[in-house]
Amino acid sequence: MPVEAIEAEVTAQRLARLNQALGSGMFVHVRNMLHDMAASDIALILESSPPRTRQVLWQLIDTQQTGEILEALGEDLKDHLIRQMSPESVARATAGMDTDDLAYILRSLPDALYKRVLQSMSSQDRLRVEQALSYPDDTAGSIMNTDTVTLRPDVNLDVILRYLRQRGSLPDTTDTLYVVDKRDRVLGGVRLADLLTCDPTASVRSIMDPELESIPVAMGDTEVAQLFERHDWVSAPVVDEQGKLLGRITIDDVVDVIRENADHSMMGMAGMEDDADTFGPVLKSTLRRSLWLTINLFAALLAASVSNLFEGTLEQFATIAILMTIVPSMGGVAGNQTLALVIRGIALGHVGQSNSRWLIGKELAIGMLNGLVWSLLVFVAVWLWKNDMALGALIGGAMLINMTVAGFAGAGIPLLLKKFNIDPALAGGMVLTTVTDVIGLFAFLGLATLFLMH
Amino acid sequence: MPVEAIEAEVTAQRLARLNQALGSGMFVHVRNMLHDMAASDIALILESSPPRTRQVLWQLIDTQQTGEILEALGEDLKDHLIRQMSPESVARATAGMDTDDLAYILRSLPDALYKRVLQSMSSQDRLRVEQALSYPDDTAGSIMNTDTVTLRPDVNLDVILRYLRQRGSLPDTTDTLYVVDKRDRVLGGVRLADLLTCDPTASVRSIMDPELESIPVAMGDTEVAQLFERHDWVSAPVVDEQGKLLGRITIDDVVDVIRENADHSMMGMAGMEDDADTFGPVLKSTLRRSLWLTINLFAALLAASVSNLFEGTLEQFATIAILMTIVPSMGGVAGNQTLALVIRGIALGHVGQSNSRWLIGKELAIGMLNGLVWSLLVFVAVWLWKNDMALGALIGGAMLINMTVAGFAGAGIPLLLKKFNIDPALAGGMVLTTVTDVIGLFAFLGLATLFLMH
Repeated sequence: MPVEAIEAEVTAQRLARLNQALGSGMFVHVRNMLHDMAASDIALILESSPPRTRQVLWQLIDTQQTGEILEALGEDLKDHLIRQMSPESVARATAGMDTDDLAYILRSLPDALYKRVLQSMSSQDRLRVEQALSYPDDTAGSIMNTDTVTLRPDVNLDVILRYLRQRGSLPDTTDTLYVVDKRDRVLGGVRLADLLTCDPTASVRSIMDPELESIPVAMGDTEVAQLFERHDWVSAPVVDEQGKLLGRITIDDVVDVIRENADHSMMGMAGMEDDADTFGPVLKSTLRRSLWLTINLFAALLAASVSNLFEGTLEQFATIAILMTIVPSMGGVAGNQTLALVIRGIALGHVGQSNSRWLIGKELAIGMLNGLVWSLLVFVAVWLWKNDMALGALIGGAMLINMTVAGFAGAGIPLLLKKFNIDPALAGGMVLTTVTDVIGLFAFLGLATLFLMH
Repeated sequence: MPVEAIEAEVTAQRLARLNQALGSGMFVHVRNMLHDMAASDIALILESSPPRTRQVLWQLIDTQQTGEILEALGEDLKDHLIRQMSPESVARATAGMDTDDLAYILRSLPDALYKRVLQSMSSQDRLRVEQALSYPDDTAGSIMNTDTVTLRPDVNLDVILRYLRQRGSLPDTTDTLYVVDKRDRVLGGVRLADLLTCDPTASVRSIMDPELESIPVAMGDTEVAQLFERHDWVSAPVVDEQGKLLGRITIDDVVDVIRENADHSMMGMAGMEDDADTFGPVLKSTLRRSLWLTINLFAALLAASVSNLFEGTLEQFATIAILMTIVPSMGGVAGNQTLALVIRGIALGHVGQSNSRWLIGKELAIGMLNGLVWSLLVFVAVWLWKNDMALGALIGGAMLINMTVAGFAGAGIPLLLKKFNIDPALAGGMVLTTVTDVIGLFAFLGLATLFLMH
């Protein structure tokens, strides 16, 4: 067995043993097994189980672990489980959770439940959360924790060291303490590593990194993730417009953003919701997939009505009907290659105003070059197959047109969608395929009608 | 301007200014601008520039920054630039680079260049790198650094604190020091935060976390990334089969793995290479995209030859030809939805042996349910459009068959491919579309032939 399968295997074995115990009704045994597991492992098992098993497992879970497990679950399943809990249990489960995670959970609750959960909280927690909820979703503020430890610049390190020892602990994933002035404006950062390695008689100011970059609280979370990736940060301070320290963002939340964005690109291109639950119930899943299929039905009917324009040609030449799917298909694949490239380029921050014209030009050139190569190939293939050179030339010509359009549209459509603030990862594929289908059919059937019908 | 566009805007402005300076031949000015930028920003600008601009920029870059810039570049562009450098400059640029990054670069070099780069290195660097290169690509070993700081368990913290102060610095992204026994086996970990907050008279053993998980050196890097994500680690020790400490993996390398895998899923589904260079040269890009288009041409010809079987029907009924793209199109979209879900489930480690049968069953059920809904809709649509109830019933029947198959195939194909160790993200989409095209055409044209031809 390849070593990389071991971890998955361990989960599989656990699942198998859990299922066995569940199946034979040994609920106490299951409860004990769950009690010994880390919250993140239980979350994984819940994600990997069909609805009925989940339901039973959820009942058997230690209420003390509920909060941590919820934190580790995907959005879809998390929502589902929370909606079944009483507001009091939600409040209890989420007490002590990181502010950003707590806000994230509350944000997704229905209004009535949300208010009741807030009421069930301690006043301190409520204040903390209401503050966090005031930042819009998908901004730095929404993934920020408020558990920062701050230092003053003109203190010596030995004082800091004594203070930390009195404090007794530091928040999770603390790698840097922030140095602030009297108005809480960030002056720099001191890494824990430097606190340990520098001379204790030095001052904070002398060892701090004054170039420490701060993140504006309203910056988009994708932007934040790009900064973390580019600079290999573990944490970064978040500031308001005056440079006042509001909190910090840690790499674990950034990893979640990266994961979400990646899921979004991949699932979005297939017309699925980012966080669709792999083992969710059938009816709910069916409903959620209908929007995309509805749009596609219209696109397919549009393509069919293009063919309908050429009914006369199709009536006379069955061969045209037989071959007519080839041109749209090749255009679709070529266009999708370009689309994927451009969407990723946008996501990585490589594509912007300054170079989008060049990019469209390049993809247009590739489309034409591709068109030449493949029209030649399909010309030869069809000529040999149908023993009809004219037919080969027709389909080749249509292919050249469609692949050129595909290159242009594959780059142009996502850039255009982005300009209108429509997410290219979501809408791009469907718009593109419609274009390449319609143009491909038009080109082939049009050329055929022009040259074959007299 | 939305705040999330600010960072992108800054890069765009810089690019614009750089381009302006380049265009007017102010190379000294450009060199100065580059000199003041961080390596990661220069890398971003290189990634975002067309080939010619890149070439000029690359000449103007400070050789001292070359190594850091290379580290931050995408694989495709990095390879391209390194192949233009002399072995000596590569050796110079990569001196002092993290072992894993250095090994990563060397791994991608052509053999001749690779050997000459190794020869140009200091013997110490060479040893370090040859060790790193002995671990297979895509394993924990290949993303591991060897710069660990280790402690003995029976020493008091004040001794450690004195040692660290003498040492003067710690490797980047160090959050935990590893506690090892005399044979270098990992006993636990001490977080820097604990060193700062605990009583200095305590022993290492008393404050260390004995439950610290170690990563086997042969574990797959995707697996490693899943562990980091699940447990919110910043770093983790890597051990050999005897539990001996070999090095450590840090979150920045894990983020690269997550990014690569995400790109792989998204780009792979469109038939693109993971790290395809958005602004790469036209000819190279065209060549790289041909494999997928070749495969698709065969798939399209296969679909055409299915239609060819029903030439007689198509000859007699042009309407059948007009409508025949609808069924494959809907099946393709429905199948792709399932495919994306399952591929993501596999990537997250949620789908395994124990639940794959359930998953296929669920997707089959969704496919049938979808099939019922959409066959009814298309039945009505076609009946109204073509004023032909029988035709509507035919296309509806074919739709039901194809969408049921699409659900089954969308889940079954990636699971089957995975079983044969073929990457489902790469091959899945093409195989699936071929299946839904062929079955869709077969079902519709077959039913039409059966019921309309006498």
